[in-house]
Amino acid sequence: MVNRSAQDIRRLNRFEVLRCFHATAGPRTRQDLARETTLSFATVSNLTAELLDAGVLLEVGHAGSSGGRPRALLTLNADRGTLIGVDVGETSIRTELFDLALGEMAVDERSITPSDVTPEQIIDLIETGVDTVLTTAKAPRSRVLGVGISLPGLVERERGVSTYSPYWAWRDVPMRDHLAERLDLPIHLDNPLKASALAEMWFGAGRDVDNLVVVMLRSGVGAGLALDGTLYRGTTNSAGEWGHSCLVFRGRRCRCGNLGCVEAYVGTYGIAETLRSLAPDDPLLAADGDRSAPLLAGLAARLADGDPVATEVVGQTAAYLGAAVGNLVNILNPEVLVLGDQVAAYLGEHLLAGTRTALADHTLAQPLRAVTLRLSSLPHDAVSRGAAALAFEGFLNDREVFGPVSRARTAKART
Amino acid sequence: MVNRSAQDIRRLNRFEVLRCFHATAGPRTRQDLARETTLSFATVSNLTAELLDAGVLLEVGHAGSSGGRPRALLTLNADRGTLIGVDVGETSIRTELFDLALGEMAVDERSITPSDVTPEQIIDLIETGVDTVLTTAKAPRSRVLGVGISLPGLVERERGVSTYSPYWAWRDVPMRDHLAERLDLPIHLDNPLKASALAEMWFGAGRDVDNLVVVMLRSGVGAGLALDGTLYRGTTNSAGEWGHSCLVFRGRRCRCGNLGCVEAYVGTYGIAETLRSLAPDDPLLAADGDRSAPLLAGLAARLADGDPVATEVVGQTAAYLGAAVGNLVNILNPEVLVLGDQVAAYLGEHLLAGTRTALADHTLAQPLRAVTLRLSSLPHDAVSRGAAALAFEGFLNDREVFGPVSRARTAKART
Repeated sequence: MVNRSAQDIRRLNRFEVLRCFHATAGPRTRQDLARETTLSFATVSNLTAELLDAGVLLEVGHAGSSGGRPRALLTLNADRGTLIGVDVGETSIRTELFDLALGEMAVDERSITPSDVTPEQIIDLIETGVDTVLTTAKAPRSRVLGVGISLPGLVERERGVSTYSPYWAWRDVPMRDHLAERLDLPIHLDNPLKASALAEMWFGAGRDVDNLVVVMLRSGVGAGLALDGTLYRGTTNSAGEWGHSCLVFRGRRCRCGNLGCVEAYVGTYGIAETLRSLAPDDPLLAADGDRSAPLLAGLAARLADGDPVATEVVGQTAAYLGAAVGNLVNILNPEVLVLGDQVAAYLGEHLLAGTRTALADHTLAQPLRAVTLRLSSLPHDAVSRGAAALAFEGFLNDREVFGPVSRARTAKART
Repeated sequence: MVNRSAQDIRRLNRFEVLRCFHATAGPRTRQDLARETTLSFATVSNLTAELLDAGVLLEVGHAGSSGGRPRALLTLNADRGTLIGVDVGETSIRTELFDLALGEMAVDERSITPSDVTPEQIIDLIETGVDTVLTTAKAPRSRVLGVGISLPGLVERERGVSTYSPYWAWRDVPMRDHLAERLDLPIHLDNPLKASALAEMWFGAGRDVDNLVVVMLRSGVGAGLALDGTLYRGTTNSAGEWGHSCLVFRGRRCRCGNLGCVEAYVGTYGIAETLRSLAPDDPLLAADGDRSAPLLAGLAARLADGDPVATEVVGQTAAYLGAAVGNLVNILNPEVLVLGDQVAAYLGEHLLAGTRTALADHTLAQPLRAVTLRLSSLPHDAVSRGAAALAFEGFLNDREVFGPVSRARTAKART
């Protein structure tokens, strides 16, 4: 059933070359790229010829060379077009406009009024967000190469359908078609697990490793998986639903309806539940609407003051998280495991230290030795940035931009 | 970091072609192979040329063709050499000799005296097993293409080292070097999770799917993973240690020392523990030495008689197993999940039915819909057969058998 065509390989290798430029700025020779990607010089020449042809790379001069002929310096053509990344969260939508070097040009953030959110409301908000970033940056719509949109829950990517949203009781909403009609732009739909994994692969901890797990901790919880160097999606694009794996057999009721899920202990609702069990009248539990940010900010502030309740809440959360992360380490034997998103951002090093300790109690020695556990080094916009990377990948996969292999052969003759 | 060379792709595609012949017997034309593998005719011609050259395939006549030139029929050259597969279990060693079509030629099974087992004892037993199958089948040692050996626990495959054995407290034993010296044959070392996954990929439920999980249930418990069409090994070849993932936070003590591991509930020791909690004086708990086979056989016999204690033990085991298997389904979104080995063989359909029910209570709807849960259809020798497939892969990867790409080009000219 494996069907690795020359076309697939070319596509993967094209991303490898581009990821070099996104990883660290600055022009490179083909020799540099061959060394950084470990691809052969011939392959790199071939790929860069295509990318130059498509206007994604530019020649910006020559590097001196001792004796030999001068080597062309290549760089990303940031002005080739723009990309939009949208992170639809439970209570807010973040829309970002990027140039092709993934430099931020404009950002828009707007809140979602909680309870019974309809697809129409979300579509309206996304449209307003896109219009706003384009207006703010004075960027013409005609130069947008694609819009990547991360929707919460499960997404059938190829059909462009939101099959299940945990917050809004959506089932099988054909969001891509709705959005493509409204925005008149190429739409690439996926969920935050895929977007964060992609963001780490392009810009973060995944640049130099083949097996990466990105744990996303917000009100929803899950894991993005990059295995053997590629984003792992599973059979129906729902891989990574670690948040709904069972950690405490017959334990707490999760929002998904099942018992004992990881999310019910380490997501923000789970953390609130742990706080409630220790201090039922704690003022942090009183906030209306989305409690995630005030709860986590409050806990972080008290942690810094050495407050015993906050310390105990984070300690218990880290004990659960270490065991749950240990499951991923035992099952997947990753090289790097990143803790990311809201919970990791607020509780930071304190959560990390406790998680490390618990991890050692739940992991076999060999996979434990092999893994580095760390906090995400990406800025707060990992998901929208990852969504823009999804749009970039969609653009690069477009057969009208990059033709069949025969084109590359022609291109090669000119290098 | 991804480095997919033409060589890697050729190697994977070579397995694809051979797996057709192992999946169902009978000669095939290149056109048949192209259809079955979905590879291009040109690629198939190229690969079969190599395999004919190496004597792994044979031409055995021609298929009629309406008008066009006759098409050569190809088949596996079963007599090209032999393969040996060894399954080192906790209490016995199974050694099988196969022809190159993986037809069984001889088998040897011998028990391991429990307690403090040394590497020297295992090496002696393996040597005797190998000598016995060769003598039984009157097969010359010089024609053995490789010996695949599955060792329990964690194995560093490239260094050929048994890094951790759960039963015998081995640490970092360089088994491959010891064995290569004694047997004077090419040795390929791995663990039963990899061997069973490979067996399912070559001969069982994995032939037609890209994402497969093979759950191995014996005294030890784990999962073999075939993801995106290839065996997934992880960073240090220890992927699949699902048996030591946490199912019951702060639950039963596992043999690995940690608390609440899946193995402590669904491995044979875990099943004995469940029985003990229900009926502490049950005669099935009294057996000395390895209790797995008598315990499971006894439970199976009583289940058939409708015995309430046995029914409750299997019911509780299925409830744990369904939740634990649900974790793999949520995290990996496989297309097929196979329950295999001793526990599945003895408790069969009864365990499967209970596991299916529990699985539905622990899995999100989308990955649940995508997965088929079934018992392994492989005979009882999945691990030794998979170990022989490891040896076959090792032989096919041998650069002295298949040279660099340029050789294939030369070969192509002759097709």
